[in-house]
Amino acid sequence: MNSEDMSAVRHSLAHILAAATRRLYGDDVKLGVGPAIEDGFYYDMDLGSVHLGDDDLAKIEAEMRRIIAEKQDFVKSTMTIAEAEQWARDNDQPYKLELIEDFYNNGTTKAGAKGTTQSSDATMSFYTNGDFTDLCLGGHVKNTVDIPADAFKLTKVSGAYFRGDETKPMMQRVYGVAFATKAELDDYLRRQEEAKARDHRKLGRELDLYVTSDMVGAGLPMFTPRGTVLREEIAELSNSLREEIGFQKVWIPHMTKKDLYEKSGHWAKFGGELFLVQSQETSDQFVLKPMNCPHHGRIFASKVRSYRDMPQRYLETTTVYRDEKSGELGGLSRVRSITQDDSHDFCRPDQIETEITNLLSAVKTIYDIFDMKLRVRLSYRDDSDAYLGDIALWESAQKQLKDAVLRLGDIDYYEQEGEAAFYGPKIDFMATDALGREHQLATAQLDFVQPERFELEYIDQDGVAQRPVMIHCALLGSIERFLSVYIEHTAGKFPVWVAPEQLRIVKVKDNDAINQMIDDLTASAKEHSVRYTVDDSNNSIGKKVRAAELCKVPYVIVVGDKEAESGKIGVRIRKDLVGEGTDESKQFTVAELMAAIQAEHDSRCKYSTL
Amino acid sequence: MNSEDMSAVRHSLAHILAAATRRLYGDDVKLGVGPAIEDGFYYDMDLGSVHLGDDDLAKIEAEMRRIIAEKQDFVKSTMTIAEAEQWARDNDQPYKLELIEDFYNNGTTKAGAKGTTQSSDATMSFYTNGDFTDLCLGGHVKNTVDIPADAFKLTKVSGAYFRGDETKPMMQRVYGVAFATKAELDDYLRRQEEAKARDHRKLGRELDLYVTSDMVGAGLPMFTPRGTVLREEIAELSNSLREEIGFQKVWIPHMTKKDLYEKSGHWAKFGGELFLVQSQETSDQFVLKPMNCPHHGRIFASKVRSYRDMPQRYLETTTVYRDEKSGELGGLSRVRSITQDDSHDFCRPDQIETEITNLLSAVKTIYDIFDMKLRVRLSYRDDSDAYLGDIALWESAQKQLKDAVLRLGDIDYYEQEGEAAFYGPKIDFMATDALGREHQLATAQLDFVQPERFELEYIDQDGVAQRPVMIHCALLGSIERFLSVYIEHTAGKFPVWVAPEQLRIVKVKDNDAINQMIDDLTASAKEHSVRYTVDDSNNSIGKKVRAAELCKVPYVIVVGDKEAESGKIGVRIRKDLVGEGTDESKQFTVAELMAAIQAEHDSRCKYSTL
Repeated sequence: MNSEDMSAVRHSLAHILAAATRRLYGDDVKLGVGPAIEDGFYYDMDLGSVHLGDDDLAKIEAEMRRIIAEKQDFVKSTMTIAEAEQWARDNDQPYKLELIEDFYNNGTTKAGAKGTTQSSDATMSFYTNGDFTDLCLGGHVKNTVDIPADAFKLTKVSGAYFRGDETKPMMQRVYGVAFATKAELDDYLRRQEEAKARDHRKLGRELDLYVTSDMVGAGLPMFTPRGTVLREEIAELSNSLREEIGFQKVWIPHMTKKDLYEKSGHWAKFGGELFLVQSQETSDQFVLKPMNCPHHGRIFASKVRSYRDMPQRYLETTTVYRDEKSGELGGLSRVRSITQDDSHDFCRPDQIETEITNLLSAVKTIYDIFDMKLRVRLSYRDDSDAYLGDIALWESAQKQLKDAVLRLGDIDYYEQEGEAAFYGPKIDFMATDALGREHQLATAQLDFVQPERFELEYIDQDGVAQRPVMIHCALLGSIERFLSVYIEHTAGKFPVWVAPEQLRIVKVKDNDAINQMIDDLTASAKEHSVRYTVDDSNNSIGKKVRAAELCKVPYVIVVGDKEAESGKIGVRIRKDLVGEGTDESKQFTVAELMAAIQAEHDSRCKYSTL
Repeated sequence: MNSEDMSAVRHSLAHILAAATRRLYGDDVKLGVGPAIEDGFYYDMDLGSVHLGDDDLAKIEAEMRRIIAEKQDFVKSTMTIAEAEQWARDNDQPYKLELIEDFYNNGTTKAGAKGTTQSSDATMSFYTNGDFTDLCLGGHVKNTVDIPADAFKLTKVSGAYFRGDETKPMMQRVYGVAFATKAELDDYLRRQEEAKARDHRKLGRELDLYVTSDMVGAGLPMFTPRGTVLREEIAELSNSLREEIGFQKVWIPHMTKKDLYEKSGHWAKFGGELFLVQSQETSDQFVLKPMNCPHHGRIFASKVRSYRDMPQRYLETTTVYRDEKSGELGGLSRVRSITQDDSHDFCRPDQIETEITNLLSAVKTIYDIFDMKLRVRLSYRDDSDAYLGDIALWESAQKQLKDAVLRLGDIDYYEQEGEAAFYGPKIDFMATDALGREHQLATAQLDFVQPERFELEYIDQDGVAQRPVMIHCALLGSIERFLSVYIEHTAGKFPVWVAPEQLRIVKVKDNDAINQMIDDLTASAKEHSVRYTVDDSNNSIGKKVRAAELCKVPYVIVVGDKEAESGKIGVRIRKDLVGEGTDESKQFTVAELMAAIQAEHDSRCKYSTL
């Protein structure tokens, strides 16, 4: 079924939903609007004092199937505006009446839109199926037999103001989803369930990863010891991949005088999105930094640089602050404290391709480790005058970007004109998570403008000052947003290298031999930098093992008399980590086990190698 | 010579300085005040259009020695206020007249002080030596023979407003230093010279460690790649020492709603010292965090904690912001962006001693590594009502602190009543640097008040909620201030583990064998995480080796035909690193050398073990 056909099915189901509701709850159900939407449809209805619950949705859904089974045709008719108004009054449909009047006054049924008054003989279209008629622009199946009756489902009901206007009455919006086949519906529902179970806000709480506080404010999450392990491990990975290609860490403060952004041009463009910082000691106007490039540029500019010193490659994991609207803040997806794994490469124009190739390779490596598929978009300028900088430099740079992508090979890419930033072409990376959702995370952007504004330069072989090119790059983007994706991608079942707790030691009971073995284990774990906890509570062994599973701990060992006597331990491995060739009955000495976990951490592999 | 005698010498030298200046520049030199100060003395004088230079100081110093050689007595006399005023007028000393009038009006010669009007027969004391008489409260030697004539020196002249008041005329302040013996003077001058050569602002520039920018603002230094190595290495050391004793890293944002500090009480106490942050989106009042404890408390409070979960130990290297006065900012000693190696320990009252013992041990270890001597001050409460919290808890805690210090042994300590913070007793650590200067850096403070204000609790064995105790602790204090001390302590000759550049590879010339060896060296250096650079410039070998020495690089190797052929390299070791038993003629293979440097880095030793 193509997307137009699918949309017709979904739109028709909206009508059938309204028809079924009126059959069940009477003709005094008043109707608002009922469109097709992504994956399904909804209808806004006013049922007076009746509040629809899950049972009601089941009843309505059954009634909808009955209507479909009646093999009703969808038949179009037209009325003049006066006739349409009369129809609405006759049928006691005040919301429809309002829509019709708006169409007459403004030529549109969109709330608040300003348009042209229609002539009084203008007509409006209606669609009828069975005994149900609705004001409608069309886009329906011919007959209800065209609707796959086993491939739709009503999913939820929520409150919605008529036409989204808070001054209008609150209606009940019934949502449904619909697909071409039952298999697609089931797959969709399964993915929805899975996404709900993986919601990073839910897992963030359950796995004790981060907390928020009203006293601190919205969008300012604080990370617990467990969540901080995630932050540190992924930042360390991102840093180490760039240190390998010559980047060096730098450090800048989180605030600056506004002057820096006046010079960079950011103040004129983004001044309204910055947190303003007021000194009580001086009259200088400060701001919290919303990006790091101008600061890093100050470090570059602090010395005379020769062509031999280029590129200068600066790297910093540091938090920027952006004054996001309160209503848009949620979990880790959108926050006000945004920790970027940021880097700035100041290079000669002839070094762009090599630098980009190295960065691309780092991006590819990191998303391989994260087990996420990558797609690359090359964003170029178009012929408009929206772009700053020398055309020849743009063209050479765009070619170098593409050559770098081709040189890397083995990666999906596409090119798009008119998607560049005004200051230079860029490469965006789309990563696909375990639920098939695509996220834009990593980015590498060329910048011809900032070096110009700050008059950055290096001295070439002939002793002449030349302008460098900047390359902004982040592998993760923001640590907070990346974690919101990664927690859901892994469902909180983190690979060993990044798991906040790698090993749970379950103590069976208290005696000298067992205590001695626990001491040996913890000493060896510390020595091998293994993140562990000991459960020596009074709960039953079964309960303790279950608790470790709920915490999604990769490795669990139970230490009882048998283990203490033999000096050997068996390991329970979290199911998703069990790779091919894993021997579940394998026994380890203390030192073997810890060394193996440490090696697995250091190799950052996806599956257990135990 | 005791300190009172020394003060008399210095004060007498101030009079002799004024007397000598009048002998040389005439009786119309007008005098302000001339006290003894730490290590010396000064006199504020108005010489009209004469501006004293170094030559003048030499001449004045010679004249002072002549006066001393005249074996003048210091003779006290008194005058009524009217007589004193007449004396000042007769001698054309308007500044002295003002001092006398102030004494009459306010009973003090302190500028701006308010006191009692003196009766007209009140007297003032004068001291005369030779033909010089000065208004003076006394404290002089009997005769100039008591002054060690070879143990003083005039050091500098600078501008100073009369009585420090900007509305008064600018005078010339001549400074001198004076000691009991010439040896002490020489030692002092040598240390001053040394301190000047070690000034961290000078070394910060020369060694390319940090930069500042007018566009960013005063007190907001940015760290270059080299300086960032210092920051990271010392922070990593501080963190790892606490991770060994059970601390876990957490992460908090740099801003918060003001509400957090209203609850903690900091707003009422320190509100004026905070940077205020204004959102353009919401009306919430935010501030930049000036400390981390209330945020860390929010993480503690995010879960129910049982007595078995205690202590909770949080660790974070994070930057706080304080709105210091612009005039007080300088280098890294006083900055507005202050990165603390902060930790907070939430423990049961019975756990204080163990926790403090562990922290003390970490402090001792870190200052051993830094090669700085430590002195400990135990700061207790006194009987005043300036302290909050339960008396019994204070007494038990103070005893636990002292027991921890005694248990550690082998450390200088003293106890001081009335030096505690209002919220709990504390331990301050004074570290002595290579120039004998003492700096207060590390601190461990108990806090009974914040847990109360935030109603923090844990559940004890009987299921009853109990109040924990907080222990604030930093090993370095602030990274910026610590570095200002450490750069001067080491004179920029950093031990290998912390040196931004550990190895300089000097390439003699370009040929295949040498290039191959350089490739082997750099590959091996990367593998062993050795921080190196290659000097392949066209300068002479001598010049390249000299350049490496100026950068204070610990190890320098020269790679020429001989090395390329033999596969063996000799190492030039920075002089201060040469320990006993170092064999300067020792030859290394590439792999041996890199492994040795890596091992030296990991062991954080003070001297070269090569």
